[in-house]
Amino acid sequence: MSALIFASLSFNTSQAHAKSDNFTAEQLSQVADIKKQALESDLAWNLVESLTTEVGPRMPGTPGDKAGVAWAVAQFKAMGFDKVWTEPATFPKWIRYSESAAVVSPAPQTLHITALGNSISTPKEGIEAQVIEFENLAELENAADNAAKGKIVFINYRMDRDRDGNGYGPAVKARSRGAVVAAQKGAVGYVMRSVSTATHRFAHTGGSHYEEGVTKIVSSAISNADADQLHRLVALGKPVTININVQAKSMGEGTSYNVIGEFTGSEFPNEHVLIGGHLDSWDLGTGALDDGAGIAITMAAAKFATLKGQPKRSIRVVLFAAEEFGLWGAKAYAKANEKTLSNIVAAAESDFGADKIWAFESNVHASSLPLVSEIAAMLKPLNVEYIANNSARNGPDLIPLRPFKVPAFALSQDGTDYFDYHHTADDTLDKIDPAKLRHNVASYAIFAYMAANAKTRIIGK
Amino acid sequence: MSALIFASLSFNTSQAHAKSDNFTAEQLSQVADIKKQALESDLAWNLVESLTTEVGPRMPGTPGDKAGVAWAVAQFKAMGFDKVWTEPATFPKWIRYSESAAVVSPAPQTLHITALGNSISTPKEGIEAQVIEFENLAELENAADNAAKGKIVFINYRMDRDRDGNGYGPAVKARSRGAVVAAQKGAVGYVMRSVSTATHRFAHTGGSHYEEGVTKIVSSAISNADADQLHRLVALGKPVTININVQAKSMGEGTSYNVIGEFTGSEFPNEHVLIGGHLDSWDLGTGALDDGAGIAITMAAAKFATLKGQPKRSIRVVLFAAEEFGLWGAKAYAKANEKTLSNIVAAAESDFGADKIWAFESNVHASSLPLVSEIAAMLKPLNVEYIANNSARNGPDLIPLRPFKVPAFALSQDGTDYFDYHHTADDTLDKIDPAKLRHNVASYAIFAYMAANAKTRIIGK
Repeated sequence: MSALIFASLSFNTSQAHAKSDNFTAEQLSQVADIKKQALESDLAWNLVESLTTEVGPRMPGTPGDKAGVAWAVAQFKAMGFDKVWTEPATFPKWIRYSESAAVVSPAPQTLHITALGNSISTPKEGIEAQVIEFENLAELENAADNAAKGKIVFINYRMDRDRDGNGYGPAVKARSRGAVVAAQKGAVGYVMRSVSTATHRFAHTGGSHYEEGVTKIVSSAISNADADQLHRLVALGKPVTININVQAKSMGEGTSYNVIGEFTGSEFPNEHVLIGGHLDSWDLGTGALDDGAGIAITMAAAKFATLKGQPKRSIRVVLFAAEEFGLWGAKAYAKANEKTLSNIVAAAESDFGADKIWAFESNVHASSLPLVSEIAAMLKPLNVEYIANNSARNGPDLIPLRPFKVPAFALSQDGTDYFDYHHTADDTLDKIDPAKLRHNVASYAIFAYMAANAKTRIIGK
Repeated sequence: MSALIFASLSFNTSQAHAKSDNFTAEQLSQVADIKKQALESDLAWNLVESLTTEVGPRMPGTPGDKAGVAWAVAQFKAMGFDKVWTEPATFPKWIRYSESAAVVSPAPQTLHITALGNSISTPKEGIEAQVIEFENLAELENAADNAAKGKIVFINYRMDRDRDGNGYGPAVKARSRGAVVAAQKGAVGYVMRSVSTATHRFAHTGGSHYEEGVTKIVSSAISNADADQLHRLVALGKPVTININVQAKSMGEGTSYNVIGEFTGSEFPNEHVLIGGHLDSWDLGTGALDDGAGIAITMAAAKFATLKGQPKRSIRVVLFAAEEFGLWGAKAYAKANEKTLSNIVAAAESDFGADKIWAFESNVHASSLPLVSEIAAMLKPLNVEYIANNSARNGPDLIPLRPFKVPAFALSQDGTDYFDYHHTADDTLDKIDPAKLRHNVASYAIFAYMAANAKTRIIGK
């Protein structure tokens, strides 16, 4: 609906040069040139290659995380950002040492497992118990109080594949709360089918939580192929016993840093466009898609958006810390910058991989829609479709900014394959297509340039 | 060339009913019915599902291998094979306990590694040394004597993808001999890019060898993504140090069993068609494609080939032991059955996955070509193309039969994707397409029926 209403506001690029209320003809010609150069550049590829190779995994609080912060500071400076600084963020630190699992009987074999973030350790020899299977979290919640007494609960819910990642929400509940509910039903361990669309044998990690007053039990996930196998074994009707061995540790409070680079604006230096991603990653892969790509896309986009000189408003790239452990960098950013959040004229985070951007969404005051429409018109030739002015759902690190009515945008990647790799060991550089990455940079560069250089600022709602 | 000459002998199926010199019209109609029923049956799927689930991995000499033998005997009996027996095969037993690797510097991170079969253990803490990279085995062979002194040799040769698996030969040399040549150049450890076309992060295992008089060093392979990463790190130009930790053991002589099931022939019980696969698998996956599929295809095919009653000649299904360790079951079979190998009227092994069969090849005496042509004509509607009468390359377990002029055939699966999974943890049941599996069974059933029931027997050359 909104898209239809919006359509009446939009116009094509050739008309834009003639009619624009927000940009000079020269500016619009600069947009075209920025797009062209971004589509030909390897800058973002070089950044994500460097980050994933020379730094590698960047789990909050690890040496890799620290190296990532140093890398980002050095890169911002080398790229010519005129202000570069860090801001601390604290978080509950958790470390994974090792994890393994096996079917003990009736058919001994290895299971590909990963501990979920925040999981406790098992005893050194692991825990061994019979498996009790549930279709989904709701079935477990509805089970009798002692339904899982002495057993290992296995939730076998399979995530749906979807361009917008809509399969994630229904599946991730069992990751976040599964171990709590299982413990409430008497279980001694918890394992779930990975929140993953992968047809390969990778387990998916991610945050999980315990609840005060509920016994903590090991919280883990097995790959889709292993979940298939465990389900088949259980379906044979004889007791299935597995062993889960997780060695992990909560380490108290950790500290990391949001790393921020800015190209200062010439006319309105305090007003700024905020783009970025999160610098941390899970430990299993090298965090290429999640979120090395977002880091590289937005750093490169800022560079291209300032290719023609200093922007009118500042362009700020924020590389958030400790997103994977619960948006800790984003929360710290909102708190530390509370007084200046109203200066944000446009905010967008890239944290959904590196496939082509297909959708553009906004969440701005109605008076800013004509300007948004001009940005949308410039994105359209890149096959980016304007969706609506009421959502802009992407960008987990922008969630803490929502109460402050920041003008929010989403440049949404096609997420059809994103959850094949997300939070697994298979999230490595080879999963990024350099051509698609360039398409992302061009889209973000156009967005950042136009929001920073428009005659009037965009207003939130 | 041979295919062209052969084309003149062939005719289409409708003509076959009228013209056949080798089959009655009733027999040809039975072929059509067998095909139809095989294409609708889940028999092979049920077999490979049961084998990979209820038994799991079947590395020679392990409890899984023993369980596989028991499973096969029980299945043959349950399927109504009238003779079921086992024949022992010995082999050098080797066990994998654990394996891990990591980049120590400059960018600490995990490497996905697997020990190659027969590898020695490292010390408990692993070995740690600088990496020296070579493009391929030849470059290492041509290096100076002490070129790798004190280092870990990394061979970075990438296998080509190919329908016929022709990329395997050039790549596998570095698996078989790499550790020997590396040791000769002074290396303390050996790691190679996996013999694999996978774009996922799985290391590929497989047999490797040591040589008398050459120091044994650890022999291992990393996934393609990890090889990319190691290559990029080495290319940075600073020393790259890695740690490899393999715990494995050679255990002296092991014993397993070829499992054989036969439907006895009515007219010529001593003459027999021999089809089969190998029952053992590597330990990382569940041996679904390699070679659970081959086991299931040929067991089911024998059942369908005898659907219309006892065959004229016997149909024997041989499930070879310890193929992965070096064709030990096949060698034992050839030796134990040396006196009756001349009774084999047609031999074919399925050991190239479960994609559709696209090619049919023979290696028979010219006098048998008209009969082969009739079989080819029946396979043609399944889109199986006759290739030539000089190769029949498939079937590693048939290699020991070659000196005995056994009439050999290949029903060749499309192997384009086979090496994405081969010898990795990702070789699991979900990689088999049930429809393609049925196509395999129908092809093998037609072949077995026609070879067993033809007026005259096929003769080797």
